[in-house]
Amino acid sequence: MVISSLQALLADFAHERDWGQFHTPKNLAMALVGEAGELAAEFQWLTPEDSARVMADPHRAEAVRQEMADVFSYLLRLADVLDVDLDQALRDKVELNRKRYPTEHARGSSAKYTAFEQP
Amino acid sequence: MVISSLQALLADFAHERDWGQFHTPKNLAMALVGEAGELAAEFQWLTPEDSARVMADPHRAEAVRQEMADVFSYLLRLADVLDVDLDQALRDKVELNRKRYPTEHARGSSAKYTAFEQP
Amino acid sequence: MVISSLQALLADFAHERDWGQFHTPKNLAMALVGEAGELAAEFQWLTPEDSARVMADPHRAEAVRQEMADVFSYLLRLADVLDVDLDQALRDKVELNRKRYPTEHARGSSAKYTAFEQP
Amino acid sequence: MVISSLQALLADFAHERDWGQFHTPKNLAMALVGEAGELAAEFQWLTPEDSARVMADPHRAEAVRQEMADVFSYLLRLADVLDVDLDQALRDKVELNRKRYPTEHARGSSAKYTAFEQP
Repeated sequence: MVISSLQALLADFAHERDWGQFHTPKNLAMALVGEAGELAAEFQWLTPEDSARVMADPHRAEAVRQEMADVFSYLLRLADVLDVDLDQALRDKVELNRKRYPTEHARGSSAKYTAFEQP
Repeated sequence: MVISSLQALLADFAHERDWGQFHTPKNLAMALVGEAGELAAEFQWLTPEDSARVMADPHRAEAVRQEMADVFSYLLRLADVLDVDLDQALRDKVELNRKRYPTEHARGSSAKYTAFEQP
Repeated sequence: MVISSLQALLADFAHERDWGQFHTPKNLAMALVGEAGELAAEFQWLTPEDSARVMADPHRAEAVRQEMADVFSYLLRLADVLDVDLDQALRDKVELNRKRYPTEHARGSSAKYTAFEQP
Repeated sequence: MVISSLQALLADFAHERDWGQFHTPKNLAMALVGEAGELAAEFQWLTPEDSARVMADPHRAEAVRQEMADVFSYLLRLADVLDVDLDQALRDKVELNRKRYPTEHARGSSAKYTAFEQP
């Protein structure tokens, strides 16, 4: 299982450095949003078209890849500390979204599901 | 492989709704940081101790689990669209961090790696 | 008026560099959340108590001050570009929050207003 | 002075609800990035062109205005709690950016200042 083996790698890394004391769920959530902000910053001035070509520039590509790894690592650590099964959580959310975004209403639309609901 | 099967699930979900037009890397990075902000908001007023007990409250637990699923889904979509191997990107970043945070300097410290580097 | 004079300063700065092309509302909102993430990162590993003493460390204090200035500058630019009166928007939101958070329900509680509302 | 009168309004609002206990710098920074994420979410699926017309839709306009007010209120509270003069911090940052982004290098470019610096 990829997810649990990555979580074990990250838990060992933190344990070797005695970082468990810093890895409260609150701190990990805060670190995650900080890294997500850095990832967003890689795209902030790009046009949509340029953003689709971001990996063609080796310097930008490496920055994007590293920021994605940082986001992923804090998400995995948070899931580990909270004992959340990310794989199942995602599958459950997709099922919920199938109900919220039926294809007949959602096709080609970026509207939030609350726009389709009964008053 | 968990990651690629989740990416296929999400790609199908988007394709059925003709959402590919919205899923530029820029937009996905923006959606990811928005969801990370909502995840952070679940923890914003909690003490570190309360944050460690967040899953004991079924209502909060479900909110946290769903926000984590949302962050994960946009991270997986972004990786798919940019053709980034998240598993490898994370392993590479851990190797980099082994050099940046040698255990003898980093143990018990939350200082950023730049604090250990030579001037 | 402080707000409008700061906005004029920032508009001139952007104009001198021909940056108007980058300052779409979408890009400014993305830059703002990126800077907010960097600000959050300054606090991510601190205990609540240490966070209250953050300005006692000159190096951290300067970093926090600069990140706050960055957030403020993008908020002011966004307000300028969208023609939002930030002063009035804030006063209006406080009035709304007086209704959402009546003192008798909200005192000493960090619960969201939706918890007080009638079903 | 607009900034200090808004800060007094927000401090009174918090004091009446005994919310000072929640308003540590760490928590306020976390709340700020959460609100910035919600503001970003208002723009996430818009094209740059549509984002420039966002205020033409009364429903979206009100959402954007309220999210901006939320970001502003946490920024003002954080500045108040940390005793940061936002007006001066912004002016100082603009002066720093004049050095980092000289017009002859920065004109029409979205490159980060580190790209202009000497090796």
